Amino acid sequence: MAPPRFIELPAGLKPAGVSGSELLAHERSKASFDSRAMAEYIHGRDHLELQERLVSILSQDPVFDKTSDAYYGRADKFRRAMLKDKRLAQLADEHQWGQTEINMAEKLADIPGPMGLHKSMFLTTLYNQGNDEQRKVFYEPASKYQIIGCYAQTELGHGSNVQGIETTATWIPESQEWEIHSPTLTASKWWIGGLGRTADHAVVMAQLITNGKNYGPHPFVVPIRDVKTREVLPGRTIGDIGPKAGYNTTDNGFMLFEHVRVPHLNLLARFSKVEPETGKYLPPPNAKLAYGTLTWVRANIVRDASTVLMRAVTVAIRYCAVRRQFADRDAPKFGQDGKPLETQVLDYTMVQIRLFPILAQAFAFHYTSRFMFELYEQNQANIESGDLSLLADTHASSSGLKSLTTLYASDAIEVCRKACGGHGYSMASGLPEFYANYLPNATWEGDSYMLSQQCTRYLFKTMRAIKSGRGKVDKNITTDYMQRYLDNKHEKAAIQFSGDLYDPLFFMRAFGHRAAYLTEQTLALRDDAKRSWNSLLVELYRCSKAHSQYLLVRNFGMAILKDEKLNSQPALRQIVQKIFLLWACHTMEQESADFLASGYIDGKQFHLLGSKVQEIMAELRPNAVALVDAFAVPDYLLNSALGRSDGNVYEALFDFALREPLNSVRWNVDINDLETTDIDSDLPRSKL
Amino acid sequence: MAPPRFIELPAGLKPAGVSGSELLAHERSKASFDSRAMAEYIHGRDHLELQERLVSILSQDPVFDKTSDAYYGRADKFRRAMLKDKRLAQLADEHQWGQTEINMAEKLADIPGPMGLHKSMFLTTLYNQGNDEQRKVFYEPASKYQIIGCYAQTELGHGSNVQGIETTATWIPESQEWEIHSPTLTASKWWIGGLGRTADHAVVMAQLITNGKNYGPHPFVVPIRDVKTREVLPGRTIGDIGPKAGYNTTDNGFMLFEHVRVPHLNLLARFSKVEPETGKYLPPPNAKLAYGTLTWVRANIVRDASTVLMRAVTVAIRYCAVRRQFADRDAPKFGQDGKPLETQVLDYTMVQIRLFPILAQAFAFHYTSRFMFELYEQNQANIESGDLSLLADTHASSSGLKSLTTLYASDAIEVCRKACGGHGYSMASGLPEFYANYLPNATWEGDSYMLSQQCTRYLFKTMRAIKSGRGKVDKNITTDYMQRYLDNKHEKAAIQFSGDLYDPLFFMRAFGHRAAYLTEQTLALRDDAKRSWNSLLVELYRCSKAHSQYLLVRNFGMAILKDEKLNSQPALRQIVQKIFLLWACHTMEQESADFLASGYIDGKQFHLLGSKVQEIMAELRPNAVALVDAFAVPDYLLNSALGRSDGNVYEALFDFALREPLNSVRWNVDINDLETTDIDSDLPRSKL
Repeated sequence: MAPPRFIELPAGLKPAGVSGSELLAHERSKASFDSRAMAEYIHGRDHLELQERLVSILSQDPVFDKTSDAYYGRADKFRRAMLKDKRLAQLADEHQWGQTEINMAEKLADIPGPMGLHKSMFLTTLYNQGNDEQRKVFYEPASKYQIIGCYAQTELGHGSNVQGIETTATWIPESQEWEIHSPTLTASKWWIGGLGRTADHAVVMAQLITNGKNYGPHPFVVPIRDVKTREVLPGRTIGDIGPKAGYNTTDNGFMLFEHVRVPHLNLLARFSKVEPETGKYLPPPNAKLAYGTLTWVRANIVRDASTVLMRAVTVAIRYCAVRRQFADRDAPKFGQDGKPLETQVLDYTMVQIRLFPILAQAFAFHYTSRFMFELYEQNQANIESGDLSLLADTHASSSGLKSLTTLYASDAIEVCRKACGGHGYSMASGLPEFYANYLPNATWEGDSYMLSQQCTRYLFKTMRAIKSGRGKVDKNITTDYMQRYLDNKHEKAAIQFSGDLYDPLFFMRAFGHRAAYLTEQTLALRDDAKRSWNSLLVELYRCSKAHSQYLLVRNFGMAILKDEKLNSQPALRQIVQKIFLLWACHTMEQESADFLASGYIDGKQFHLLGSKVQEIMAELRPNAVALVDAFAVPDYLLNSALGRSDGNVYEALFDFALREPLNSVRWNVDINDLETTDIDSDLPRSKL
Repeated sequence: MAPPRFIELPAGLKPAGVSGSELLAHERSKASFDSRAMAEYIHGRDHLELQERLVSILSQDPVFDKTSDAYYGRADKFRRAMLKDKRLAQLADEHQWGQTEINMAEKLADIPGPMGLHKSMFLTTLYNQGNDEQRKVFYEPASKYQIIGCYAQTELGHGSNVQGIETTATWIPESQEWEIHSPTLTASKWWIGGLGRTADHAVVMAQLITNGKNYGPHPFVVPIRDVKTREVLPGRTIGDIGPKAGYNTTDNGFMLFEHVRVPHLNLLARFSKVEPETGKYLPPPNAKLAYGTLTWVRANIVRDASTVLMRAVTVAIRYCAVRRQFADRDAPKFGQDGKPLETQVLDYTMVQIRLFPILAQAFAFHYTSRFMFELYEQNQANIESGDLSLLADTHASSSGLKSLTTLYASDAIEVCRKACGGHGYSMASGLPEFYANYLPNATWEGDSYMLSQQCTRYLFKTMRAIKSGRGKVDKNITTDYMQRYLDNKHEKAAIQFSGDLYDPLFFMRAFGHRAAYLTEQTLALRDDAKRSWNSLLVELYRCSKAHSQYLLVRNFGMAILKDEKLNSQPALRQIVQKIFLLWACHTMEQESADFLASGYIDGKQFHLLGSKVQEIMAELRPNAVALVDAFAVPDYLLNSALGRSDGNVYEALFDFALREPLNSVRWNVDINDLETTDIDSDLPRSKL
């Protein structure tokens, strides 16, 4: 529930000049396309209708009211998130929601809660890795919230290096039990979502040791709290790890074990097993098949990165259309009424150059996530018919793309926040909390800098295979561009005028050439100059980035060339093509050192890229607000005084200020009096 | 005071493997120089001794204990900051501190408080802009905290554009008073530090209107709260603007006026005056002289940017020396004892390339801030002898440098945080709050993107003057490099081997050439192609950045060539020279598109820059920890579990977790029970 307004404003005051809603209406009237049609093209009609339905349910339920969130301390934040998780479970039951509805409701509620990992990793792992008996004993009660779980993999001393975790699960033949133990302080589980105060069970990843041999990390189900009393069970030491930059609505926890015993049944045994009689370890049939799920997870991450950009840039573009500052140096300073004429901030090219490429990148990520889902489907079908040829390429590309898109998206939120000037710094903008909560994406599911190595390792392998001509080389996207490069090593860009920069094929060729060129150069350092792997990490990262950017260019370019839905709607096609060109020219300009150094472009062509970017920015400017409208991010999700679709920015900033609870207190400012600092306080006062 | 530990750990647990303190001791033993000697070279012995003395006073006073800060909600944060401001005033009195001691104590306490603007802008403005009577009436009681003030310039609708503020101060001849009024909602003062709940007086910037004419913004002293009861006075509407990304320890406020009257005396009248009898406005003698103070403020900002980099990179480098993850691909995976050997994260070149240039940038900013203070002194001396020739150059360079250094420093904190992986996200790292509190630097004292235009405007003027040969061209740093460029337009880098990259003069020439080249190119677009100013903002920004980078290269390079103190200590000189080379090569590589496109370097030389960077990183690696030790950032200021000088990272992370107040509560997780979510809670519960 919203806190009261603690202060009353003088009556009748309005913002100066043209109102925000008039300004946005004017912006919308200039659009060259229908933003609802564009929204349907991007998201599909079903998605939009479902979103409208869910927003109407959630925004009317007091548990999902977001008005107070910014004022809360940690305890209230956590309490609200716990309520949200409970109520969401109730709503899913009441409305008979499927997974699509549940997922979207979670995203709209937008508050990472203590049961988030229960619903995702805990249930998924129990189901996917549990055998039939384990599904019955663990999965079924968990799916009904009769037990609440978490997924305990990361440790204080080991995150990215899962193989290095220290928690052990030793088979005790005498009692036919597993003994879970933390031998050191750094063996403590750490960062585990929902573990701190909530979960009563955990899937614990631990080194499986039997008959004196270590078989690496495996998942064990371990009860950790009494389901009724919520007391921590003996032999476990558990708590919340304390406040973080974001995610303070979740109780990320730590956990140490002192020789805790669990039955044989608690090793999740769909794949690897241990024979209870002999303690003999039976390995899984094919470890590589897990790559399929990983691709799916990462396709989701790329899609999320796209929606993150849409949300952040919607706030910034709408606000910069409402915000006016300074008169134009080349235009009259005063209007006919004698009042100062100030420029919409969105008209400044220095603002456009920060925001429009983000808008365009949202499209690029969108097409590539769509491509990844298609690839995933195709790959799964192939696997069922015994064809594993796509597996390695798909896995490598998904690693590189996960790395690139999460780093880019987190940076982009900050760019959008800064483009909102001072007011972007207020929690009322919605951007600081959004940034803080998105950040872990660049770290989890594989640290983005580290993960890129998996991509380049595959690029090396592929380049070696093609160049040596030995062994079968699968024909795929990567081998295609590498082969093309090897056949045309000294290709140069055939661009003379900025008008020559229009063809998606030009950009696809250019980025493919660059990715292959960098791979070849770096591979020579490894194979010929015998440089150590660690000394090459900077170059390896560049290769992965170049490959991923090639994929983004390719998938966006292919949509321009071949997407039937797009090409059948000329008004949409025209604008999306411009967005492609902006994005491709801007990305090429950003990465131009590679293109210049390899001789692919020269100084004159470099300048053409810059002026083309400026040219398209001017063309896109009248459509900017309509384009972010087409992203269809509901006001309820934006939760931003600056990004509201009605443009009433200043009124919303005031509303946010008037409800600040600090405004209910008077303070004693006498510097000689340290004893008491507040007068007639209603505020919660901690005992710290 | 530190909160209790709510959970006890099992006894005797230690981190796995070599301890953090052993690792850091080993790192320190490898240094090629004495880090205390380096610290004295950088900061001076007086500074270090004072710092030690103040740390010992503050860290023993419970008011300055930082242990609880991360767990506080807004009200407790504000309460702590208020206490700190009061106690600091008492200490200054007890110890008879001068301005140097007070400033350093503020920095070490590191918590922006509600009286911060009272002590800076309010007092400074009263003193500098008040006449003798006003100093007596306003400044004297303010300096004794008998009245507490704030500086009310920014409004809801106007930040960067000060000329556009809407608050009016109209001269009422009948009563010989000023009438302060807010005609619109956007006229509300906004973001004013200390206004929300604390100040009883404000310096209000308002449009001075007399005899029907507007003379632009002027400062008025306005009482706003009753000094005794703390009640807001009639005609004012005042409150806190609500939570922000950082700075929540300060009550940034809003304020609206309804026809508030103040006496004639309350216009601060050292420069501009209004005759009470006639209402006639008397303008100040020379407005340009204010530039001197601005340069001084900005020299401070550049120095702060340097210390910001030192602090952030100290945390990251120490932690990355303690943190180990993954075995080296080219080395044995297990030690002789059979335990896994993992690599210090700092050995990964992908980590080095993110951190070492920041370490080097700290030196670069340090030398340039020193240069700016010297320039300020020289300029002030010149002005006293009537010589204004340095004024414009100094002002322009300080604009460009403020813009560049604040944007760079805020980004760098995040780079350091990300290099700390998952644990960087914990508030225990000290980096998230540090980042959030530093951010406003890129916005206040002139938005950094906007401010850069002032620099480029001067570069244009200078280039025009030199090229036209008309008018007197003052000889200074800027005209020097421009003239050199015009005499050698087609100069190319004379570099064949990476060994050729050693001479500071080479880099100074290269960056000067680039800055002049970009200025000439952009000026042609404005003067010849008649492009509008707004369409050129991206290019204008690049010119300012290139000019500022030239200054950084120049001042760092001059130190290598001429700094007596450095050159008399060979061990220091050797390492600082390497740092210069790393920084110069890396910056040149980052900006290489300009150098490549203009033909100053070719593709082969571009690759030399990259390999030189790698070469020096390897050479710097053994000195990395000793170098951050030399920055001499006290543990008390770092306030970071990851950056502690003793290396006991994991113990400190645990200590932080065990004190989290959420750990004192059990929660009811029954999804069918929304009514109450906590059991036996001791936590503050807000009424929201």
